Amino acid sequence: MTDEGALKGIRVLDLTRMLAGPFCTALLADAGAEVIKVERPGSGDDARQFPPKKGGESGYFMLLNRGKKSITLNLKSPDAIRILRDLAAGADVVVENFKPGLANDLGIGYSSLSAINPRLVYASISGFGQEGPLASRPAYDIIAQAMSGLMSITGEPDGPPTRVGESVGDLIAGLYCAWGITVALQARERSGRGQYVDVAMLDSVFSFLVTAMTQYAYGGIEPKRVGNRHPISTPFGVFKAGDGHMVIAIANDPMFARFAEAIGQPALATDDRFRADELRTKHEPELRAIIETWTGARTVAETIATLEAAGVPAGPIWSVGEAARSQHIRERGMLTEVTHPTAGPITLLQQPVRFSDTPARIQGPPPLLGEHTEQVLSGLLGLDSETIGRLRANRVI
Amino acid sequence: MTDEGALKGIRVLDLTRMLAGPFCTALLADAGAEVIKVERPGSGDDARQFPPKKGGESGYFMLLNRGKKSITLNLKSPDAIRILRDLAAGADVVVENFKPGLANDLGIGYSSLSAINPRLVYASISGFGQEGPLASRPAYDIIAQAMSGLMSITGEPDGPPTRVGESVGDLIAGLYCAWGITVALQARERSGRGQYVDVAMLDSVFSFLVTAMTQYAYGGIEPKRVGNRHPISTPFGVFKAGDGHMVIAIANDPMFARFAEAIGQPALATDDRFRADELRTKHEPELRAIIETWTGARTVAETIATLEAAGVPAGPIWSVGEAARSQHIRERGMLTEVTHPTAGPITLLQQPVRFSDTPARIQGPPPLLGEHTEQVLSGLLGLDSETIGRLRANRVI
Repeated sequence: MTDEGALKGIRVLDLTRMLAGPFCTALLADAGAEVIKVERPGSGDDARQFPPKKGGESGYFMLLNRGKKSITLNLKSPDAIRILRDLAAGADVVVENFKPGLANDLGIGYSSLSAINPRLVYASISGFGQEGPLASRPAYDIIAQAMSGLMSITGEPDGPPTRVGESVGDLIAGLYCAWGITVALQARERSGRGQYVDVAMLDSVFSFLVTAMTQYAYGGIEPKRVGNRHPISTPFGVFKAGDGHMVIAIANDPMFARFAEAIGQPALATDDRFRADELRTKHEPELRAIIETWTGARTVAETIATLEAAGVPAGPIWSVGEAARSQHIRERGMLTEVTHPTAGPITLLQQPVRFSDTPARIQGPPPLLGEHTEQVLSGLLGLDSETIGRLRANRVI
Repeated sequence: MTDEGALKGIRVLDLTRMLAGPFCTALLADAGAEVIKVERPGSGDDARQFPPKKGGESGYFMLLNRGKKSITLNLKSPDAIRILRDLAAGADVVVENFKPGLANDLGIGYSSLSAINPRLVYASISGFGQEGPLASRPAYDIIAQAMSGLMSITGEPDGPPTRVGESVGDLIAGLYCAWGITVALQARERSGRGQYVDVAMLDSVFSFLVTAMTQYAYGGIEPKRVGNRHPISTPFGVFKAGDGHMVIAIANDPMFARFAEAIGQPALATDDRFRADELRTKHEPELRAIIETWTGARTVAETIATLEAAGVPAGPIWSVGEAARSQHIRERGMLTEVTHPTAGPITLLQQPVRFSDTPARIQGPPPLLGEHTEQVLSGLLGLDSETIGRLRANRVI
């Protein structure tokens, strides 16, 4: 095992704020890249203000900016733009999630920076992409969820379209961007050249609609909300136990026979209403009543233990806290405690991919605003302390 | 622009079936990798049977297996295992999503294949990972959604936990796996060595719960379902217009003032019930009634046009078909028609990342079962047609 991350030696200039961009660059940092986050002097990334906080630091910001360096640059100042261009000359990757066009207007778009550094991989994340009829619209997770079609297929059949309860529009785009950047780095190994990578939240979510697209493009039907039921398999979905909800996922007849046996009603498997999947789907309400009579008289843990022993796929519906405290999440190391210089011990989410030779891991706490400004400006650009003092006095940094 | 994919020259031996694995290797294929899909003789990937079909071919299978080669190998035969090991000797990547342990039992686990080819990157996707207390349990998307906490925060506050209407447990894991493989390829550029990459569906979904973890780890509260509302901003969510649903996302007071103006009721912005975000959140039902009186008397398109002109973030909730037919999705090239040798013209989903120098694109139609068996066995392993005929007679291929 190497004690170095896979992306060791890759320097990322990170101009992103909020969620999608910082999630992307957090993955790069976990994999060993040096991520230099560029923030506005004074207030920094807006996410630094988001409640709840610990020791004055935003939990949201800290979860998303682990292991990065922070420098401040006032991008309205020509001196700051010059510094940014000098930094880009020595970087491998630039990532930004400004409104499309703004980076160009500031003189730090792909064309200007690649002219300085042709090896640069430059990635932009936006709501609707850098080109296209909606490019100028601002990005919001709920709008990407709404316009992709994802909300239209989430929720109960007789209820409204439903937003996924986490900002998956941002997160899917951020993960695609991390993938895109690494693919472009791989291409650079052969070509010697960097390139531009354009990621849209709407396109990213839309590309996930594989099952729905199967129905639309091949079945000639408009996919609908089916709640927690499976379109063709029954029983499949959410059931009420005595102390909470659980899922049961029975995909075929032999599995249903094992299930019927396990709940002490083997006759169900030959019952004319339930002996085949399409019959069970037709008689779902009656079957559900029978199942919930059984599950309702037991705890979630009891029902799962019985079904697991019978080889029937079932699982608890955990709250976020139950998942976080589970033996699985603990043993898989998905949550890590890190010491923050001012907030003390903080809990951070790990990225999930386990690499045997170059483990991805949290490289350090999230940075204080501008914590690394002097280190970066003197270390990478050779600026002396007098110059740095003048830049600070002039509010350039 | 190079007319070659970024991953040109990378050969992937793809042992995956169903959704998570094939989604991962489809991304690799789009980026230019040579993906050789290994299928069971006779029936192949189970997904080949999934309805709906076109010209006898499953839409689901075709969407997920574009641009790959297909060879058949009966992995219960020692001859097939020998062939697979010979192919692994010349491959860069192996991906599998068997039940944990099965690849080892077959003699094609990481330790045996890396002994033959130390440069091999070997990735496994499973429900709960290769190690950990739940490793032996089978994987189902709904169980990963349920146990990660995602279902517990999706849906109406007074309704049940709700499954996201697309198999995001599989898809997030597949995308993380594609990222992990490329990161490992990048590490190999420096180290000369491959490595093992372990991706769990449950961990992958859990790692997405950033906003929820903020509340749990820093706010000391258990995140709950809030339906389509925003926990702290109002009006934010789904509203009924005359001909369908739409979303409005107002994040602050100045934006609300513009909104009030736009709907012809500027007095709302100074109304004591609505003049600040926390007041609006408190009086949400009254505000919703006022807004839906306005939206309900108009079409979705009319309300969006009015709000867009006022700079208020709003968008339609599109069905999957509406999204697919939209000018945005068409101009961004997210759907492509490809000609399949037997099914004729078919519609496929593009991956969403746009690369300026090495565009990712669909490299060809999905393969017929075993379409490339002879080509691969003779081209890569030098087997002659007599040997291939004998293997076929013996049901090895």
